[in-house]
Amino acid sequence: MSSSITPKSALVVSAHSADFVWRSGGAIALHAQQGYQVHIVCLSFGERGESAKLWRKGNMTEDKVKAHRQKEAQAAADILGATVEFFDIGDYPLRADKETLFRLADVYRRIQPHFVLTHSMHDPYNYDHPLASNLAQEARIIAQAEGYLPGEKVVEAPPVYCFEPHQPEQCSWKPDVLLDISGVWQQKYQAIQCMQGQEHLWEYYTRVALQRGVQAKRNVGITATRAITHAEGFQSIFPRVTENLA
Amino acid sequence: MSSSITPKSALVVSAHSADFVWRSGGAIALHAQQGYQVHIVCLSFGERGESAKLWRKGNMTEDKVKAHRQKEAQAAADILGATVEFFDIGDYPLRADKETLFRLADVYRRIQPHFVLTHSMHDPYNYDHPLASNLAQEARIIAQAEGYLPGEKVVEAPPVYCFEPHQPEQCSWKPDVLLDISGVWQQKYQAIQCMQGQEHLWEYYTRVALQRGVQAKRNVGITATRAITHAEGFQSIFPRVTENLA
Amino acid sequence: MSSSITPKSALVVSAHSADFVWRSGGAIALHAQQGYQVHIVCLSFGERGESAKLWRKGNMTEDKVKAHRQKEAQAAADILGATVEFFDIGDYPLRADKETLFRLADVYRRIQPHFVLTHSMHDPYNYDHPLASNLAQEARIIAQAEGYLPGEKVVEAPPVYCFEPHQPEQCSWKPDVLLDISGVWQQKYQAIQCMQGQEHLWEYYTRVALQRGVQAKRNVGITATRAITHAEGFQSIFPRVTENLA
Amino acid sequence: MSSSITPKSALVVSAHSADFVWRSGGAIALHAQQGYQVHIVCLSFGERGESAKLWRKGNMTEDKVKAHRQKEAQAAADILGATVEFFDIGDYPLRADKETLFRLADVYRRIQPHFVLTHSMHDPYNYDHPLASNLAQEARIIAQAEGYLPGEKVVEAPPVYCFEPHQPEQCSWKPDVLLDISGVWQQKYQAIQCMQGQEHLWEYYTRVALQRGVQAKRNVGITATRAITHAEGFQSIFPRVTENLA
Amino acid sequence: MSSSITPKSALVVSAHSADFVWRSGGAIALHAQQGYQVHIVCLSFGERGESAKLWRKGNMTEDKVKAHRQKEAQAAADILGATVEFFDIGDYPLRADKETLFRLADVYRRIQPHFVLTHSMHDPYNYDHPLASNLAQEARIIAQAEGYLPGEKVVEAPPVYCFEPHQPEQCSWKPDVLLDISGVWQQKYQAIQCMQGQEHLWEYYTRVALQRGVQAKRNVGITATRAITHAEGFQSIFPRVTENLA
Amino acid sequence: MSSSITPKSALVVSAHSADFVWRSGGAIALHAQQGYQVHIVCLSFGERGESAKLWRKGNMTEDKVKAHRQKEAQAAADILGATVEFFDIGDYPLRADKETLFRLADVYRRIQPHFVLTHSMHDPYNYDHPLASNLAQEARIIAQAEGYLPGEKVVEAPPVYCFEPHQPEQCSWKPDVLLDISGVWQQKYQAIQCMQGQEHLWEYYTRVALQRGVQAKRNVGITATRAITHAEGFQSIFPRVTENLA
Repeated sequence: MSSSITPKSALVVSAHSADFVWRSGGAIALHAQQGYQVHIVCLSFGERGESAKLWRKGNMTEDKVKAHRQKEAQAAADILGATVEFFDIGDYPLRADKETLFRLADVYRRIQPHFVLTHSMHDPYNYDHPLASNLAQEARIIAQAEGYLPGEKVVEAPPVYCFEPHQPEQCSWKPDVLLDISGVWQQKYQAIQCMQGQEHLWEYYTRVALQRGVQAKRNVGITATRAITHAEGFQSIFPRVTENLA
Repeated sequence: MSSSITPKSALVVSAHSADFVWRSGGAIALHAQQGYQVHIVCLSFGERGESAKLWRKGNMTEDKVKAHRQKEAQAAADILGATVEFFDIGDYPLRADKETLFRLADVYRRIQPHFVLTHSMHDPYNYDHPLASNLAQEARIIAQAEGYLPGEKVVEAPPVYCFEPHQPEQCSWKPDVLLDISGVWQQKYQAIQCMQGQEHLWEYYTRVALQRGVQAKRNVGITATRAITHAEGFQSIFPRVTENLA
Repeated sequence: MSSSITPKSALVVSAHSADFVWRSGGAIALHAQQGYQVHIVCLSFGERGESAKLWRKGNMTEDKVKAHRQKEAQAAADILGATVEFFDIGDYPLRADKETLFRLADVYRRIQPHFVLTHSMHDPYNYDHPLASNLAQEARIIAQAEGYLPGEKVVEAPPVYCFEPHQPEQCSWKPDVLLDISGVWQQKYQAIQCMQGQEHLWEYYTRVALQRGVQAKRNVGITATRAITHAEGFQSIFPRVTENLA
Repeated sequence: MSSSITPKSALVVSAHSADFVWRSGGAIALHAQQGYQVHIVCLSFGERGESAKLWRKGNMTEDKVKAHRQKEAQAAADILGATVEFFDIGDYPLRADKETLFRLADVYRRIQPHFVLTHSMHDPYNYDHPLASNLAQEARIIAQAEGYLPGEKVVEAPPVYCFEPHQPEQCSWKPDVLLDISGVWQQKYQAIQCMQGQEHLWEYYTRVALQRGVQAKRNVGITATRAITHAEGFQSIFPRVTENLA
Repeated sequence: MSSSITPKSALVVSAHSADFVWRSGGAIALHAQQGYQVHIVCLSFGERGESAKLWRKGNMTEDKVKAHRQKEAQAAADILGATVEFFDIGDYPLRADKETLFRLADVYRRIQPHFVLTHSMHDPYNYDHPLASNLAQEARIIAQAEGYLPGEKVVEAPPVYCFEPHQPEQCSWKPDVLLDISGVWQQKYQAIQCMQGQEHLWEYYTRVALQRGVQAKRNVGITATRAITHAEGFQSIFPRVTENLA
Repeated sequence: MSSSITPKSALVVSAHSADFVWRSGGAIALHAQQGYQVHIVCLSFGERGESAKLWRKGNMTEDKVKAHRQKEAQAAADILGATVEFFDIGDYPLRADKETLFRLADVYRRIQPHFVLTHSMHDPYNYDHPLASNLAQEARIIAQAEGYLPGEKVVEAPPVYCFEPHQPEQCSWKPDVLLDISGVWQQKYQAIQCMQGQEHLWEYYTRVALQRGVQAKRNVGITATRAITHAEGFQSIFPRVTENLA
């Protein structure tokens, strides 16, 4: 929306260490390819709630699980071309105090993102996800306030997109943006394969990408020449400001 | 979304002959300026429901009212840089049979619009508006069908936007797009002034443009350098397909 | 909202000939008591869909059913202190053409109602009800238009209330007004008893009135001195305009 | 819900001749297997709107397209174990007059279905679908009325389920029932393959079945012993009546 | 959904000590009768917010109120055939920290419920109710996680039902299940009578049961042979998984 | 709703120290004029989030900002004829513990308000606003409970109205009440001018008042004799109880 010499940037706020891959790996890779500096915050490692396979191995501790999950997430971020940091605030339940809120606001100030990706506002299957979404949104508002750490450069009004939850209709999530990730699908699938503990989800999210691809194609026009094979869906929180409607 | 030698085009479906001015005059002027061929279909002249001032003059007939309204609408379209045609199917109540549906589908086929503007889906104050919106949307679907007048070039999947109703919250209308019309506001206000019979609305819609302008500015970021003074709000029917989220 | 010498008036649009009793008998009696001229339009007699008991008697014709239903409805209206007319447009399915729309608009012009009562906007159990509601609302809009039968006195903007459907939650109906009908309950119950063919509903709607009464009491305050035993719920279509919020 | 000697039955109302296959082929096969007599009404052949591939062949007429589509639908119904009839009322746009409404009500009376499957209530991509859904629902209500063809056996209150539209979130469709069709998937896929003109949808709806299968599994419990590979989602119109909540 | 030698079980999470009686006494008695082990958790005694009559007696302390309420709740649970435990975390306002969350998760692990009953998601009259509902749902998710107290048997995916709030429409609560409690109504009414401090609610909830009974009957079919006199309504949080749609 | 010798009263709960002016200055002045004792609680001074202009002056501390904002708010309250107190609990983020909740409940007990004004339930631009609204609503419930500080006079059931947020449609806010503030507009505008730090909002909220005025006029009837130039919109939380529907 603005052109500047410093590279554009994006921020992804992920409740657990693998969410950003399934739900926005394509968006991350695509914008990295376009020159964006994409930064990911993993609030937790998903050590309790999303590491079933690791726990079933036996002889496991929470620290071992965390270390394993961190390695996977770092590898995935590397493949996607993004940086990642880990807040390690615990999961199941995720809880964020003021300190965490300010810590995330500080990331906003540092990154000055041109857009933000995070979780849906509702998810009856996963209470950590909406909490992460609310945290990401409130931190953005704090980071916009002149009175928070006065003198620092405040953030402008980056659009916020909610990425696709596991069972979209049950989460009242409705995509109003379909992002064409056909060109980076291979990269996303590679990142997906880093998640050794959740192999059962690989094909599920491959199918999600294919379905959203077909839908994107349909929303461009069946007879249109543009080829789209894979897509990701997003739901906007704010209206977009534009000068063209086509 | 596609690049071609033929100019891009847009279609506006207006229930009454002045709706397109209040609700999308800025969008029309802006895209005309960008080289779009913008075509307007006025389904009726608003002769019964939106010509109170004319009727109060006395010594009036429906034909005289229609002629007067047509002249005003034509003048406004000229100022905005668009073409306009009048279906003259009557208002209060607007009713559309299959013939009207096909007539509008034929306009779609002829114009091959890159986007479509029409009314909101709900309006408890005005039953003609949702009917026009449904007609515009169903005609688009007919025009997409290979089996309707086979052999003709079908339309692709132009996005459809609902423009702002008179009392937006009462119509469950929520803008997800704010179009910056600062550069064409003077043109829109000139077009508004063609509507001699509805002078009470001039300042109302000037204020609408100013409020949406402030909101657009806020959604870009208060500290952003982009200046926006006037805007129009739109609600999308379909998800947009894109390759960039900023 | 305005004070005048001519009595205030109200219009009730009922899909079938008994609906006005169950759903708004209290409102009718109460306003009649307050000096309102309340007029009821029964679009049909409910001859097909709501006269099961009559049909089961055997040796019945549609004309006999209608005559029976008309007599009951007239008796109920008399008890409630209202006038009633019957459009006799048929039920199951109710269908309204332009002629019916104008006929109802003419009733609006004649009655000049200060408020309007009709059905809910949704009812998966009864397609006639939403159709009646839409007809009542569109006719009101026609009657407001200067260009419809120019020269006649147009109607102002009477509030429209949707009365309670049989299974309120399934109809997405949410009352925002609870009308205290404690003082006229006996009158309503007398009117209810006119409906000999639907005795199974007498106790059902008695309980509805008691439940809404308890709720009204709760919304005034448990410790408040005002006694409320029976109430009717209504959902407003339009915002109310007022000068006091208590 | 009731036990009787006559076999249980089900009714499927499909706007176009292939809808019942993609959206409820599993439900049909499964209940046929359970002994239900499943009857399908195809309101149109989808000759205009959903036969693009046929039209592109050239040298085609509407009658040829219809004949082709009928043959495909009949073959699919045979595979699924259901009977099918064709109303042939035209598509794009589908329009239903009173005669069609009564014709469908008569099917209800004849079939006395224990449940009904039809389209979603909203679909901005396809106006025929909601129209078919409304027709199916209103016909059910007519068929329940004692005063419609008095003396005939009325239908009770069969539950109505909306099957999955092509882009579920855009249609405000939310499944509250996931039907395990693992055991009949092969049969459904065979029926799908009858639709030679819509080969692009075969894999799309295979993936839909797999995704709903994963979700069904998740809603039973990941560690539960029940294996589910394929499912179909449905949205109920009415509350279900039961004596057990597990 | 699964057959096992150990008895089936259910969990009820009640914000205050009487909620489970008004809102799900029938469900509890019915499933107890069917052999389920039903366990109730009362988060508080409702000592502040729902014991007005006791406080008005004078000479009362919070401890006395609690003791009184506990006795009533225990007696009601006994009549219904359920076990009950009291978390005593206080009401008006109810607040739950992590410890309470884990305490409730542990109950889930111990009970391994086949279904769960709790409050509605919204209630503008009672902030404790949605909080209890959220707590019940989040604890269920914790109890499903392999990483929470690894090695313990996790819970599967028991369906969660929200029981009826006091003013259902104001709470955006819509029942999608009507449970036939005709056979256990006398038992429920006995349990209701244990609530000596809330006598004003006895008849209110009797009428609720009768209204839901009529509605259940209507959703089965007026002419159906099944007799239903009393029912309870529930709203599902999750889709149900089934193999039959009748 | 009740007549008493003690003056009627109202309570306004404002997240930041200027909110009450923009959003309900007219309601405050109007009811003060009608003899109500209107009391305002400002939870914070908006020192961080809504004092950008002050911070930009440089050489500023949080205490200085607070003092400045308090002076402005006090001046505005004086002009409107209301009393004001400041909870000073901090903003961006606003957080309320039990102590604050009880402190506000105590204000309710002291004021015994006949109606309450506060923020909307949703606001993606401002997380403090919904939090303030929830706090105001929960405190009202506490203050209604006999068991909270037993022996004190509990509050009855004052209606709660949500005032207009900055971008109403984005906050899912829909006014169902339009308050005619034409007679006190000059007073409100004077109060607005106290807000020296937010001059950019003066004209914005002047236009809001004018738009709501036009809408109020339209909802009374264009041809009605009542003149309305300025209005404020409110959304009710609870149904109103009344004896007249006109």
